[in-house]
Amino acid sequence: MSSLGVGVSPGNVPVHHGTDLKVFDRRVRLGELILRCVICILALLAAVLIASDTQVKKIFSIQKKAQFTDMKALVFLVVANGIAAAYSVVHVLRCIVSMVRGSVIFSKPLAWAIFSGDQIMTYSCLAATASALQAALFSKMGEPTLQWMKVCTMYGKFCNQVGEGIASAVIASLSMVILSAISAFSLFRLYGNNKDKNNARW
Amino acid sequence: MSSLGVGVSPGNVPVHHGTDLKVFDRRVRLGELILRCVICILALLAAVLIASDTQVKKIFSIQKKAQFTDMKALVFLVVANGIAAAYSVVHVLRCIVSMVRGSVIFSKPLAWAIFSGDQIMTYSCLAATASALQAALFSKMGEPTLQWMKVCTMYGKFCNQVGEGIASAVIASLSMVILSAISAFSLFRLYGNNKDKNNARW
Repeated sequence: MSSLGVGVSPGNVPVHHGTDLKVFDRRVRLGELILRCVICILALLAAVLIASDTQVKKIFSIQKKAQFTDMKALVFLVVANGIAAAYSVVHVLRCIVSMVRGSVIFSKPLAWAIFSGDQIMTYSCLAATASALQAALFSKMGEPTLQWMKVCTMYGKFCNQVGEGIASAVIASLSMVILSAISAFSLFRLYGNNKDKNNARW
Repeated sequence: MSSLGVGVSPGNVPVHHGTDLKVFDRRVRLGELILRCVICILALLAAVLIASDTQVKKIFSIQKKAQFTDMKALVFLVVANGIAAAYSVVHVLRCIVSMVRGSVIFSKPLAWAIFSGDQIMTYSCLAATASALQAALFSKMGEPTLQWMKVCTMYGKFCNQVGEGIASAVIASLSMVILSAISAFSLFRLYGNNKDKNNARW
């Protein structure tokens, strides 16, 4: 068993192992909890910032209103981040219950469910963020070769708020990438069987 | 040890364990090899299809040429898929050498390098594909609320070939998602230590 406490199967072993192991498992759980809280807050912030963003502009006698539903990429981003925030709330509660109980006992099907959920969330949010970022770049810079004009010169306040929302979504997505690696670790170490103590270090 | 051959650490244990274990490891390696070949071919196909795509259109007396460099999202996609294809070639060779030798002996630093490389490739290609897909949708459908006109009505042949390239990139990205899970499994099972035989099953 590693001195760092790796090489343990939390799905199988109740907490009656060494102190190092306990410390390592506690750190992993704490890291997971913090990441899930950060993701929850940032994903919610992104969804609210973009969904609540509007700007009305009067061009001659015509009133034009910019809102996130004008662009499907922003609708996709709001939906993906809304779902990610709700999903994170559920897992924050699960993490807290697990920490209060002081145990890391969970089954393989549960570990598989968490891993799969995290993977789906991460890839969906990353795809939504990338496509929204692309749409935002077109709006900000235009595409002169295709004669697509800049929209942000007209709707400056609207674009700034969308930009803040996308920035929030980018950080949430990067946090999800790290979280996905943690849940992959939590799942796949259940399938390990180190016999060589010396090789069990990080 | 599991009857399916899971619960082994290929970084530590030479191949002198049970038949089931050998069969399982061989299947994982074969699956990895097939996926890497598929990714290599599809990523290369996507890059070549898009990079070689051009269409010249004469509008009155002005000649206009459409090419992938007109849109940064397509340049990003070509670069990402080109790198992914080259990266896959290296790993296909590594997989073949490993299969010919008939061993799964590799170190943890190597497993970490493969895992990290696969993660970076997957997320980069997914982001590139999502942003190119967004740009392609704007080109195909236009965005009437922003007065961005459809481009594909004018450059039909060009758009079709780009569409084929993006379809190829989408399948390559999905294959990378599965491959990432396999490399995560190959890495993190090195940190496991199942003591309970009954729980070691999938």
